Amino acid sequence: MILVLSPDASLEQIDHVIERVRELGFQPHVSRGESRTIVGAIGDETKPFAQNFAAIPGVEQVLPIMKPFKLASREFRKDDSVVYVGKVRIGGGSLAMIAGPCAVENYEVMDTVAKYVKAGGANILRGGAFKPRTSPYAFQGMGEDGLKILKDVGQKYDMPVVTEVMDPRQVDLVCRYADMLQLGARNMQNFDLLKECGRTQTPVLLKRGMSATVKDLLMSAEYILAEGNKNVVLCERGVRSFEDSTRNMLDMSAVPNVKGQSHLPIIVDPSHATGRPDLIPSMCRASVAAGADGVHVEVHNCPEKALSDGPQALPPHQFLALMGDLRRLGDALGRHFWAPTEA
Amino acid sequence: MILVLSPDASLEQIDHVIERVRELGFQPHVSRGESRTIVGAIGDETKPFAQNFAAIPGVEQVLPIMKPFKLASREFRKDDSVVYVGKVRIGGGSLAMIAGPCAVENYEVMDTVAKYVKAGGANILRGGAFKPRTSPYAFQGMGEDGLKILKDVGQKYDMPVVTEVMDPRQVDLVCRYADMLQLGARNMQNFDLLKECGRTQTPVLLKRGMSATVKDLLMSAEYILAEGNKNVVLCERGVRSFEDSTRNMLDMSAVPNVKGQSHLPIIVDPSHATGRPDLIPSMCRASVAAGADGVHVEVHNCPEKALSDGPQALPPHQFLALMGDLRRLGDALGRHFWAPTEA
Amino acid sequence: MILVLSPDASLEQIDHVIERVRELGFQPHVSRGESRTIVGAIGDETKPFAQNFAAIPGVEQVLPIMKPFKLASREFRKDDSVVYVGKVRIGGGSLAMIAGPCAVENYEVMDTVAKYVKAGGANILRGGAFKPRTSPYAFQGMGEDGLKILKDVGQKYDMPVVTEVMDPRQVDLVCRYADMLQLGARNMQNFDLLKECGRTQTPVLLKRGMSATVKDLLMSAEYILAEGNKNVVLCERGVRSFEDSTRNMLDMSAVPNVKGQSHLPIIVDPSHATGRPDLIPSMCRASVAAGADGVHVEVHNCPEKALSDGPQALPPHQFLALMGDLRRLGDALGRHFWAPTEA
Amino acid sequence: MILVLSPDASLEQIDHVIERVRELGFQPHVSRGESRTIVGAIGDETKPFAQNFAAIPGVEQVLPIMKPFKLASREFRKDDSVVYVGKVRIGGGSLAMIAGPCAVENYEVMDTVAKYVKAGGANILRGGAFKPRTSPYAFQGMGEDGLKILKDVGQKYDMPVVTEVMDPRQVDLVCRYADMLQLGARNMQNFDLLKECGRTQTPVLLKRGMSATVKDLLMSAEYILAEGNKNVVLCERGVRSFEDSTRNMLDMSAVPNVKGQSHLPIIVDPSHATGRPDLIPSMCRASVAAGADGVHVEVHNCPEKALSDGPQALPPHQFLALMGDLRRLGDALGRHFWAPTEA
Repeated sequence: MILVLSPDASLEQIDHVIERVRELGFQPHVSRGESRTIVGAIGDETKPFAQNFAAIPGVEQVLPIMKPFKLASREFRKDDSVVYVGKVRIGGGSLAMIAGPCAVENYEVMDTVAKYVKAGGANILRGGAFKPRTSPYAFQGMGEDGLKILKDVGQKYDMPVVTEVMDPRQVDLVCRYADMLQLGARNMQNFDLLKECGRTQTPVLLKRGMSATVKDLLMSAEYILAEGNKNVVLCERGVRSFEDSTRNMLDMSAVPNVKGQSHLPIIVDPSHATGRPDLIPSMCRASVAAGADGVHVEVHNCPEKALSDGPQALPPHQFLALMGDLRRLGDALGRHFWAPTEA
Repeated sequence: MILVLSPDASLEQIDHVIERVRELGFQPHVSRGESRTIVGAIGDETKPFAQNFAAIPGVEQVLPIMKPFKLASREFRKDDSVVYVGKVRIGGGSLAMIAGPCAVENYEVMDTVAKYVKAGGANILRGGAFKPRTSPYAFQGMGEDGLKILKDVGQKYDMPVVTEVMDPRQVDLVCRYADMLQLGARNMQNFDLLKECGRTQTPVLLKRGMSATVKDLLMSAEYILAEGNKNVVLCERGVRSFEDSTRNMLDMSAVPNVKGQSHLPIIVDPSHATGRPDLIPSMCRASVAAGADGVHVEVHNCPEKALSDGPQALPPHQFLALMGDLRRLGDALGRHFWAPTEA
Repeated sequence: MILVLSPDASLEQIDHVIERVRELGFQPHVSRGESRTIVGAIGDETKPFAQNFAAIPGVEQVLPIMKPFKLASREFRKDDSVVYVGKVRIGGGSLAMIAGPCAVENYEVMDTVAKYVKAGGANILRGGAFKPRTSPYAFQGMGEDGLKILKDVGQKYDMPVVTEVMDPRQVDLVCRYADMLQLGARNMQNFDLLKECGRTQTPVLLKRGMSATVKDLLMSAEYILAEGNKNVVLCERGVRSFEDSTRNMLDMSAVPNVKGQSHLPIIVDPSHATGRPDLIPSMCRASVAAGADGVHVEVHNCPEKALSDGPQALPPHQFLALMGDLRRLGDALGRHFWAPTEA
Repeated sequence: MILVLSPDASLEQIDHVIERVRELGFQPHVSRGESRTIVGAIGDETKPFAQNFAAIPGVEQVLPIMKPFKLASREFRKDDSVVYVGKVRIGGGSLAMIAGPCAVENYEVMDTVAKYVKAGGANILRGGAFKPRTSPYAFQGMGEDGLKILKDVGQKYDMPVVTEVMDPRQVDLVCRYADMLQLGARNMQNFDLLKECGRTQTPVLLKRGMSATVKDLLMSAEYILAEGNKNVVLCERGVRSFEDSTRNMLDMSAVPNVKGQSHLPIIVDPSHATGRPDLIPSMCRASVAAGADGVHVEVHNCPEKALSDGPQALPPHQFLALMGDLRRLGDALGRHFWAPTEA
């Protein structure tokens, strides 16, 4: 940590800074420049009190040197992590396609959509039973009944299933039905929920918050890892911006950015990132080309009758065409969608 | 709701749109322009399926007309709401000053800070016992022990207390000690937590999320109101932006913006919005001049030794000076800080 | 244009709105709902006064229906535009690679970098002679001497050249040396400069402003097109965001977003978008997969000695590897880099 | 400047870094920590090549210590600068009210509006003759005819006038008519225009760009100051954000933020920042309370017939009421609007 002192810091202040640096367990290293003094504080920057250097009188700026996450970092683990969701492998070069309707609506819709996405080559089935909705008057999901339908349909088509968990009190329940827990963008910093999911061994799909930096995302992953669950897959799903023609702004560079700093797999969700079916296929292709370990797409057999987020769902024929494109692209890049026969 | 059809929508598509509008319980009203047809869908836009109009083939754009919130709206209630926290009145012209340390650290610090803020004229005491921290390695709060200290010190100085609740499982516990529940920025769309707080009658201080629009904030308030708790106070605390010299960007215009659309009181938190003690006093003055119902300021007797967010805390002497300024300003504007003797 | 009247608009106000709509040359179309009246104003929304509807008393909201650009729109021209820069074709399925140093520094560096990028397969050479720099104390470019070097080196390697123009007074001069004019992000809404470039027939590379929406970008293209220059190529180069680990946020979805609304070619500049050489190759691949008509990359033979933006330049060997990747990817997608022999 | 080397930097790389630091004219100061080496580069960070440290192999991060602006900085000049526009003083405790229509439309409107704003107590008259408009089809301003009208009306009411200059070729012309040159948000980084204005002695009102940080704004001021014109007044006018209910987001904390770093006066423009007349009065009050040296407000006698930005103009009676409020507030704060009699 580098402490930049203000140009008019007094000698007493400088001495006090050095003393505090020692008290907090760091080793001070002082450089006196022409206009100001700089104090390097050598030690573990993740210590609880390290941030407080900024409050010492005479300190103008504190520049952290170390990354604030450990277990999620590339330094901690050089090789890419691989996460298994049921028999499906995410990371390590193979591609995941997570597809399904936004919400579980009833058995028939779930079954129809699953049949289509399975035919297209999706390897993980999604469907929300607990839905975070901006409005209290919107459909809030089927709850446990939805979980049952999702699990049944997943078994019928031999696909592991992922579904969102929103409340720490639901974690046990959702784990009984789901092969992977989704933590939504709005809950990326719901720390009690992160800890609760970290206490299971069920894989977690952690979505980036709408105003989270890549570092924030990795810090939230650190919460899960620190509790003992190593099965974390990150998901870029767009962030809030001033651009008003798309639902969010897809930060495609987060894919290589995460891969440089962390060993965790990362997939991309163009459905929520763009909110526009006309943009989803090209953003899926770009995600694979950027090096993502998979994509996440919402599919509905009749978007105009969907109970949630219909306008952003792909209809089945577009999904099938997209999968053809992605396979060709994967072939060129030496990567392919994991198939259950490989398990 | 206005449905703008695409210029090349076919007659069949137009008929289908009109049919779907009727099926969903709206009354269609068709205008044919030179280049495109527009369909007004007259009815209750907060109906769960209204969003789906955008997924009907031939529909290019859906323009909502109504506000998506009801109970929080100025149309629902013309007069300003007033919320009582203990004996302190928020809204309706009087000013609240919520002050205290970021976290409850121990009895001595809490007592010292409370003594100072009381002397300055603060009317509500704050202190966090459950702390949402970006890092799992940072101080996470004292939990119930902290709640006890906060309550004791509040009683000693005759100040109602507000403290954050992060987990739906903690709501009952926190209600036993606190006069007001704080819902932090990271939990503004933690819908299960909103509902749980909505089932109590304890006043709620609902902070704006870091990427929430004013409409999103009011929708979250709607969740609490819809469960039956009318005691909601909103809090502007800055949003994420590209400006990197302040912690967040304080959206001061949110104050009159909320007041135009809603009857709920709103206060401002310049401590989190700016993260810089040198900016806090002028932003408190501006908040009062903008029409806020109060301000929220973190104070610590020794910021460099604080266990949480020390660098953004005001030391006691600056807090005292600030209160003098705010009182003079309030006098000029015909508004004053609520004092316990008025109860 | 849809005028949503406020719920408490008086009958007089409604009559006045209708009268004004007629006066401004629009045809009014009135729908009375239960809670409010809506007036459709049918006519040409790009008329100068159309925005003023919002200032008529009783009008709460104005919802535009039409796109504000014409010549740039897909409706105006269904087929993709193709722009020739020298003999190099941009758009219509072929790929452009614009490469070179940030600034023209001297003949030797320009020659060395050109040799490498030519060898890699770049088809357009770049180099800045007039440099927009945040600091007045930074290197401001070589001016006309730089233009001469750029042109000479371009001719030596049979590559057309693109360079930035910053001032309307420089347009004639730059046109004498350059095959394509670059309009930088900071000048995207420098309207006098846009008009001046529109009065030439030299192709223009129009970069998206740091806070410009896709619509704003197309409006700026409209300025050039309206003056008579049809040779406009758009460039996504990232926008400002809260993410602080990259220089800007690359809005990859702008590529299909532009292509849906406009016939103009669009390329991507990952160098400025990310500012990080470690992210550039994967973002180039993603751009091609997303459907961009080309990419723009800064290359320098010794980044640590570059006079401008060295830290974001690719060294030659990384550029060569990147071109190999992009060719393989292009083959899979049925697209290839335009070669001079095709002219 | 602090160079943080990567944990796996080799000894050769470290030596090369130190050598380059010396070559570029800085003094190296090396600290070897457990996991990485840090090199302080002591010297003038505004040197043209200082940024290049980031491109040296083995350097992971470069942390600047010094501010990149000099003449604009508080270190350069401790006391607040005062700028005279005609006889009106901006800065040093007195308040400026710049008011008038968005565009000069004709003599009658200009005269009417000037009469009202003068009566209210405005001390500087505004009106645009060259208008930057997003659309090429919108009213582009009256040009020199507009300048003449503005000057005549200003003289009639004894008010200095401010008007926008958009093109370096117009600077001489505009200086013949105007007492102050406005540089609009879209031109904040139009560096040739900044330089041209810097070569005059006419005061400049420099508006913050829509995606400019406070530091960027001060760097643009530095361009003007470095050319010899010391008469720079800054203007906060809102930045782009995700909030879609206001035109921009007014960054109120920029006022004290600028005042801490710079001696230049700063005013606030709530008209462009919010785009909503219902928010303008409270944002003017907040600006004065925050410590701004003045405000800038658009006024029109008939907003619905304005040729530009009518919907955001205040009608005269609201302007008069606002001035009453601001005077009362100023009295409480010990500040008042500069009146011509004081000259």
